[in-house]
Amino acid sequence: MVRFFVSAEELMGEDAFLTGENAQHAKVLRLKAGETVLLCDGEGREALCQITQAEGGQWRLQVMERRKSQSEAAVAVSVYMAYPKGDKLEHVIQKATELGAREIVAFPSARCVSRPDEKSLKKKLERWQKIAAAAAEQSGRGVIPRVVTLGSYREALQRAAQADKALLFYENEQAVTLKMALSADGYESVSLLTGPEGGLEEAEVAQAREAGIQVCTLGKRILRCETAPLCALSAVMYHTGEF
Amino acid sequence: MVRFFVSAEELMGEDAFLTGENAQHAKVLRLKAGETVLLCDGEGREALCQITQAEGGQWRLQVMERRKSQSEAAVAVSVYMAYPKGDKLEHVIQKATELGAREIVAFPSARCVSRPDEKSLKKKLERWQKIAAAAAEQSGRGVIPRVVTLGSYREALQRAAQADKALLFYENEQAVTLKMALSADGYESVSLLTGPEGGLEEAEVAQAREAGIQVCTLGKRILRCETAPLCALSAVMYHTGEF
Repeated sequence: MVRFFVSAEELMGEDAFLTGENAQHAKVLRLKAGETVLLCDGEGREALCQITQAEGGQWRLQVMERRKSQSEAAVAVSVYMAYPKGDKLEHVIQKATELGAREIVAFPSARCVSRPDEKSLKKKLERWQKIAAAAAEQSGRGVIPRVVTLGSYREALQRAAQADKALLFYENEQAVTLKMALSADGYESVSLLTGPEGGLEEAEVAQAREAGIQVCTLGKRILRCETAPLCALSAVMYHTGEF
Repeated sequence: MVRFFVSAEELMGEDAFLTGENAQHAKVLRLKAGETVLLCDGEGREALCQITQAEGGQWRLQVMERRKSQSEAAVAVSVYMAYPKGDKLEHVIQKATELGAREIVAFPSARCVSRPDEKSLKKKLERWQKIAAAAAEQSGRGVIPRVVTLGSYREALQRAAQADKALLFYENEQAVTLKMALSADGYESVSLLTGPEGGLEEAEVAQAREAGIQVCTLGKRILRCETAPLCALSAVMYHTGEF
């Protein structure tokens, strides 16, 4: 079924409309009156709608059934990633969205080579959020993951630690595996933290422990900074019964 | 420890040498006599060596200890991917190598938009194998995964089915999860098959079943063709105790 993201307000009435890019898209797809489409508000609510008007550039829909999104993961996973070089963050935002992350949080750490300055940040954040929205649409998500940027490593630790389970991956950790970390008790939210190209500094890892974050390994092979969060996210989704 | 890939022959004597790119690399790293390095033959054997000469462009090493590679996965996973568009195969080769795959096998399927012609294949295969070698080195692998190309979908099914466990991921499968497929009995080798951008055709999925390949789901969200194999590979590595 064709899906469109609209604002939460647009989803509230008995009728709904496709405008702007949605209308363009509907035109390209040659949708017709009588067909059924899915409207999503990007926050987990959706409505099955029937097209009642598809002429004169007007796309009018009638809401038939409201429901909770069917495609969201049971556990809310936040991917915390230290700013990587180049366009790797864009890659991670796209892939983490497909894989079901609830949010992607970028933060600076000691060995980050690049971090956006205040001036460029607003534009970049808009761009990143658009990437998340496009990936959410393509992968059939009911929630558009929020892209968040934080100003300091300390802030990232504090925010990440608020999840039921907060994990940091460190290449020098050998004893605690992700499996051990995930096996204990029930949890509804998980934070996954990974470092930049050069890795996290030992002092930073110690700081994370102090903040109540569990340090664990992703195995014997060194993963690139853009591979680690997606590997961990895939494993968490697998562990929590998504597939 | 610094690691270098050499040929199996070069690893056989009591002395070894760094030549070509390895010598270049050693020079850049300013390695000195007395330092210890690791030589790997890319097939799972390695040797701890001490540098005995580091002058005049000659890099001579003495083998101190031979051992099996410590960084290989317990289960040999083959990633079978239908030819995707653009440079996505290169991406998957790099990432699958980091994640521990034993080989990456590319094959054509009905909805593949592009597939290399005979003429360009040799060059491309060389390039792909180089990507695997570079990723193996960077991630600390003891084995350089082999990149294999097959001429037909049927051939891919037959080859994949020879593994202890052969799985194909299909977006319309809902009943059998990867977890169910992995939970049964012991296995030492696993094949993971995924389709191209447009997915596999129903007839192709039926053909896979006939070949003895189990069809399963990667969850409710539609993964891009380059995301699916890496997600599945991460989950298999997680399941088999790698992290």
